[in-house]
Amino acid sequence: MGNRAVVYQGPGRVEVREIDYPGYEMRDGPGVNKMNVGRRTPHGAILKTVVSNICGSDQHMVRGRTTAPEGLVLGHEITGEVVDVGPDVEFAKVGDIVSVPFNISCGRCRNCKERKTGVCLNVNPDRPGSAYGYVDMGGWVGGQAEYVMVPYADWNLLRFPDRDQALEKILDLAMLSDIFPTGYHGCVSAGVTTGSTVYIAGAGPVGLAAATSAFLLGAAVVIVGDLNDERLAQARSFGCETINVTQGDPVDQVQQILGRAAPAIGQPLVDSAVDAVGFEARGHGRDAGTEMPATVLNSLMDVTRAGGAIGVPGLYVTGDPGGVDDAAKVGSLSLRLGMGWAKSHSFVTGQCPVMKYNHQLMMAILYDRVQIAKNVNATPIPLDQAPQGYREFDQGAARKYVLDPHGMVR
Amino acid sequence: MGNRAVVYQGPGRVEVREIDYPGYEMRDGPGVNKMNVGRRTPHGAILKTVVSNICGSDQHMVRGRTTAPEGLVLGHEITGEVVDVGPDVEFAKVGDIVSVPFNISCGRCRNCKERKTGVCLNVNPDRPGSAYGYVDMGGWVGGQAEYVMVPYADWNLLRFPDRDQALEKILDLAMLSDIFPTGYHGCVSAGVTTGSTVYIAGAGPVGLAAATSAFLLGAAVVIVGDLNDERLAQARSFGCETINVTQGDPVDQVQQILGRAAPAIGQPLVDSAVDAVGFEARGHGRDAGTEMPATVLNSLMDVTRAGGAIGVPGLYVTGDPGGVDDAAKVGSLSLRLGMGWAKSHSFVTGQCPVMKYNHQLMMAILYDRVQIAKNVNATPIPLDQAPQGYREFDQGAARKYVLDPHGMVR
Amino acid sequence: MGNRAVVYQGPGRVEVREIDYPGYEMRDGPGVNKMNVGRRTPHGAILKTVVSNICGSDQHMVRGRTTAPEGLVLGHEITGEVVDVGPDVEFAKVGDIVSVPFNISCGRCRNCKERKTGVCLNVNPDRPGSAYGYVDMGGWVGGQAEYVMVPYADWNLLRFPDRDQALEKILDLAMLSDIFPTGYHGCVSAGVTTGSTVYIAGAGPVGLAAATSAFLLGAAVVIVGDLNDERLAQARSFGCETINVTQGDPVDQVQQILGRAAPAIGQPLVDSAVDAVGFEARGHGRDAGTEMPATVLNSLMDVTRAGGAIGVPGLYVTGDPGGVDDAAKVGSLSLRLGMGWAKSHSFVTGQCPVMKYNHQLMMAILYDRVQIAKNVNATPIPLDQAPQGYREFDQGAARKYVLDPHGMVR
Amino acid sequence: MGNRAVVYQGPGRVEVREIDYPGYEMRDGPGVNKMNVGRRTPHGAILKTVVSNICGSDQHMVRGRTTAPEGLVLGHEITGEVVDVGPDVEFAKVGDIVSVPFNISCGRCRNCKERKTGVCLNVNPDRPGSAYGYVDMGGWVGGQAEYVMVPYADWNLLRFPDRDQALEKILDLAMLSDIFPTGYHGCVSAGVTTGSTVYIAGAGPVGLAAATSAFLLGAAVVIVGDLNDERLAQARSFGCETINVTQGDPVDQVQQILGRAAPAIGQPLVDSAVDAVGFEARGHGRDAGTEMPATVLNSLMDVTRAGGAIGVPGLYVTGDPGGVDDAAKVGSLSLRLGMGWAKSHSFVTGQCPVMKYNHQLMMAILYDRVQIAKNVNATPIPLDQAPQGYREFDQGAARKYVLDPHGMVR
Repeated sequence: MGNRAVVYQGPGRVEVREIDYPGYEMRDGPGVNKMNVGRRTPHGAILKTVVSNICGSDQHMVRGRTTAPEGLVLGHEITGEVVDVGPDVEFAKVGDIVSVPFNISCGRCRNCKERKTGVCLNVNPDRPGSAYGYVDMGGWVGGQAEYVMVPYADWNLLRFPDRDQALEKILDLAMLSDIFPTGYHGCVSAGVTTGSTVYIAGAGPVGLAAATSAFLLGAAVVIVGDLNDERLAQARSFGCETINVTQGDPVDQVQQILGRAAPAIGQPLVDSAVDAVGFEARGHGRDAGTEMPATVLNSLMDVTRAGGAIGVPGLYVTGDPGGVDDAAKVGSLSLRLGMGWAKSHSFVTGQCPVMKYNHQLMMAILYDRVQIAKNVNATPIPLDQAPQGYREFDQGAARKYVLDPHGMVR
Repeated sequence: MGNRAVVYQGPGRVEVREIDYPGYEMRDGPGVNKMNVGRRTPHGAILKTVVSNICGSDQHMVRGRTTAPEGLVLGHEITGEVVDVGPDVEFAKVGDIVSVPFNISCGRCRNCKERKTGVCLNVNPDRPGSAYGYVDMGGWVGGQAEYVMVPYADWNLLRFPDRDQALEKILDLAMLSDIFPTGYHGCVSAGVTTGSTVYIAGAGPVGLAAATSAFLLGAAVVIVGDLNDERLAQARSFGCETINVTQGDPVDQVQQILGRAAPAIGQPLVDSAVDAVGFEARGHGRDAGTEMPATVLNSLMDVTRAGGAIGVPGLYVTGDPGGVDDAAKVGSLSLRLGMGWAKSHSFVTGQCPVMKYNHQLMMAILYDRVQIAKNVNATPIPLDQAPQGYREFDQGAARKYVLDPHGMVR
Repeated sequence: MGNRAVVYQGPGRVEVREIDYPGYEMRDGPGVNKMNVGRRTPHGAILKTVVSNICGSDQHMVRGRTTAPEGLVLGHEITGEVVDVGPDVEFAKVGDIVSVPFNISCGRCRNCKERKTGVCLNVNPDRPGSAYGYVDMGGWVGGQAEYVMVPYADWNLLRFPDRDQALEKILDLAMLSDIFPTGYHGCVSAGVTTGSTVYIAGAGPVGLAAATSAFLLGAAVVIVGDLNDERLAQARSFGCETINVTQGDPVDQVQQILGRAAPAIGQPLVDSAVDAVGFEARGHGRDAGTEMPATVLNSLMDVTRAGGAIGVPGLYVTGDPGGVDDAAKVGSLSLRLGMGWAKSHSFVTGQCPVMKYNHQLMMAILYDRVQIAKNVNATPIPLDQAPQGYREFDQGAARKYVLDPHGMVR
Repeated sequence: MGNRAVVYQGPGRVEVREIDYPGYEMRDGPGVNKMNVGRRTPHGAILKTVVSNICGSDQHMVRGRTTAPEGLVLGHEITGEVVDVGPDVEFAKVGDIVSVPFNISCGRCRNCKERKTGVCLNVNPDRPGSAYGYVDMGGWVGGQAEYVMVPYADWNLLRFPDRDQALEKILDLAMLSDIFPTGYHGCVSAGVTTGSTVYIAGAGPVGLAAATSAFLLGAAVVIVGDLNDERLAQARSFGCETINVTQGDPVDQVQQILGRAAPAIGQPLVDSAVDAVGFEARGHGRDAGTEMPATVLNSLMDVTRAGGAIGVPGLYVTGDPGGVDDAAKVGSLSLRLGMGWAKSHSFVTGQCPVMKYNHQLMMAILYDRVQIAKNVNATPIPLDQAPQGYREFDQGAARKYVLDPHGMVR
């Protein structure tokens, strides 16, 4: 059977090419860890990809900011239909429509048992934690493809209760594999709850998902900051306040927005802040054209009240060959931790452990409590248009591109 | 200065009468604990009552189900304007519009420091915990009156940030003194969160406030059960599913409602359940005409899934002279704890510690994230119509009566 | 290969008999749920039993208080050596010394993913939750035997890091399968933490494990109540205060013990209480000879302070053919919930989800932070002496009997 | 009445001088915020200082690393006897022996109600949070003095239940005002619990208090790193493993210590790490002679496992005139956040909110569950020897100096 997929071909280049149909054993190939070659996965399932999204973290690779090898098959935001199951699979059934958490996990190690599936100990020989189609993540084949194999299927797959209902809401459910839980985790980590005032740095898909999550968690006011007016307009479309950070540091605008209804005691700063930008941050105000990796975290300490908390779902890396200076190249940032300490801030970093949240977010979607697809402007495109999708997304389109390899999106 | 107030005059009788204008010392009177007589409260503030609600727990007294003495001034759901402050008050200011948590607390004892203001150790010589205008609660004068004294004002008062905004939203803000936090606490205690399936027993004001809270916390589906069709219609008005329990135990109807979209694995039971009825519960089905105090709790264990949780904000008492049998008279219930144990249920009981939640719920109101007044059908009436309000509420009107002693409700 | 095991032969009778050597498919037999007959378990491992303990909950069956069928193989407290693994096992290795949580769980369902392994949805067709060798638990063969099969081995087994070290400490590690986590869970559920004052009802092995756990959690004072002087002496051996409840309700003695060092504000009651007795409770004082199933829970509400919490690891059942009255026969108890409500008590019930705690308790044992075997008076006996062990334990011996089928205990 | 006190007289100089006897109004003086001058404190109590400790954070001022003015009265670790109470005090009584949390808080603002007393909004006009005798903290007179005024006494004072018992254990109870809760908070923030493996950076008094707390919380193994052999010996005296970081980065030694008993899966790194050093950190290995402010935090990310957590009670400042470079002068650190992010680390910073923990730690002391005075080598000295105590402590003495102004230490 054929299998067409999106393949990284060097900085700035992705192509759709034919690759192997998946099986239950890991084969050698670009980016596959030697220790994983030949690994058997009788616990896996093969999915026909219903939808597979382009993610901002894919862009880091495509922009050449990582050591991703040419030939790497991309894609870690997978929603699919089970078309085959390995001999060890007991509960997943052919025909199930399922969401796949982007973090691959085994369901048997100490971290998985503690719900820390973002740092599973058994799937990546290099370090804890893994993902499909990603550099330094063990070599699991990506899912921007017609078919993909998901290991530990009984553990990893989230089954939707009704096939027809699932296909009706597929653009919303597509966001369960990564950005909706990631944004939600950012908010939960930042202590967002009923009545919170929240600042979200970044109006890309993760930022918009975080803003959506903040409302779902009951936030009173959600302020989103970005450099891109189109993305800020998207944020305003579902009730966010917005700040264009090309006009300067956000703290003054935050105070103005909080204004009257803010508590009289204490400064009008936010309770919670979320970094949905990560290591390729640019400066604020006159520095908006320049990459300044610590900008976002420093401004979050500025806008967050004493006693508040900061969630950091935005990606920071251990090595960045294209970093702006020697510190950035090894993942070091010049942080005003003294300010954060004076305010008793807490910081939660890392991959979102998707499985901790995806069931409950699915329920919110199925019962129409949230419109995540609309909020992130989910835009389905055929698999063949993936290169164009990557390009437009990189140029700042206020869209979340959803690849639809089999024309199943209605 | 005059001070007219709602006074309990024996079973079934409340009257509006002139009482003393409040001062900073507790005077002897009906229901005042001897050890509190003469207690000085220089830390208190005198409020002009903006609104003061009639509560279902007042009805227990008025129906003669307690040892409340004749002459007791009623009212513990107080929203007011500060018109005077005692010499020890530092932060509350004359002119502030404020909400008063129904549980009186000192802000100095171990329980208050642990945020357990519902069981403050310093305000009631009889036992931990107190309230205004309530039997066995130490003798603090009730607030269904033109004026009322609030002790430990800097600790107890929640100030609204803007006077005009507060008066515009006064019917919503009025619910911060008791039922909104109480319903919210019931849901939090029951583990309600994003995507939860929830059953609320009781569609009185606390039940409707719990249902409102469940949605605010992100619940997927909220099912409300009651015997009263008018109250169930009120629940449906803001998106709840409903069950009339005169038709039998709710478990079958719950399963039918959860139906298709419920997770395929496991029975379709709710994740969380809230008892918003308490000790005067009636039976289900053919027993609907009979008081059966354990009915609600037993049915909650029935409808809640294994691993779920149960919040019990509904009032259960240590003594009930009008109880249906000897067990009920001492607050004993025949509970199917074996069933709850087999499902690993947890149970959280007791007064809601209002101060733990009122700031955040105020923010949700001020930013228009919730419409609590509309959902509970808040109905303002003049102070003089209090007796009629008590009567109609006792007869099952689907209304939350809000006394407006000074005609300040717009 | 042979396999000798402890078999229930009717009320008051257990025998050691030859049974089948385990395989990777469930066979029909006494107590096996029809829907589980023929179930394949290629994910299982076969253990050579190193030690297997007699549990108080086994006694409920042996005393004839359940519907357990004759021929049921007993035993759910298993520590073993892996001697074979099924074809789907990836991480467990032959030769590993492992602890087996008594609650069987799949590691794939929603409850397992939420760490609620005591109510796994996939192992017992009757209801959520299961255990080895237990009535109404699906029919998994018990482990008071030379060999036993553990399903979902990669999920269920806790591997000890070093074989020699494990065998040296085997009597301590043996308690990880049930009573140590169960006692610990009871304390955690009751909010026990640094500086807590704690009351434990019951000085059987679970009560002693709870008391040990309370100290490990940092409790200031641990008070244990029981009817049995020998067991109370065992509790005193490691620093507990004790109360003989044949002398009356414990509340007066608790207050006397807390005495001077208790906080001046508020009554000297405990912060936390644990029910380590369950449904076969006897009365206090003059009622000590009579079974009164609600005695313990009611007295815990009495001795616990307002704002405190109650953990209920002691077993309550949905049906008890030998119950003292009609209510008891269906698992109903007459509880003074009104008193608990007035004190804002919370109650956590159900099987301990062992996997949530066993890794950390193992570490505490391996680093000599706790002496659980000594505290519960672990007493190894050969498999053949199981009938005598059951008898002595039923008569109140202050011992935890540990079956040693292969003479591996040093 | 006279009042002798320890006064900062410029870099490297402290003297004991006569100062004003305290009253219930803030007077102008060195370091007093203009907005606080004349502030009335009728809610205050005057304490006769029983003991008052020298703190490492005092040394930052004395070493001239802050803008502390000459004439500042030092001391924020106060234990005293109430000798007078202001007119608004209701519960504190003359004769009470009490502990004073170092963070001054009002007990009326939003942060205090949320238990965040380290960032109280009402006591320091400059920023949230305050302390006695400290630069930029509003100007509250320090307590290394014979007498001191404590505002909001009913809120701030922790009363010991028995005077004689308190004086017997005074050196232990003295640690409740700061370092014991601070170390405990560091551990709690780092997720230390039963069975944890823990690394503590710094063997000064806070580090030793953190190590003590780690054991109290049930840690399996506690590893302490420092440059000072005498302090490391002190850590070993109560069961810690130790690492001298002059020999290089701690990660290799940590792995060696964890060795055999560490879980087989995953690297042998610690679960939890605590920074008890702060901004004056020195390098490791060959850099041990050089101040390198980010050294500790970077090494904690190195030694902590994926999924672990980091507590940061060590002080980081918003401005450091004596900082090693321009970044350090404004409190910026070059942190390898990319590494922390890859491991999903969380970081909790800020002053310990002492009131959250001091009651429970008091109970642990009163019931002899912990020997904090012995572990930190508490050393009482007369008030007049304070200058010598400061000097020896600065030179690295493995002692916690406790000033005893009235010779009350037995």
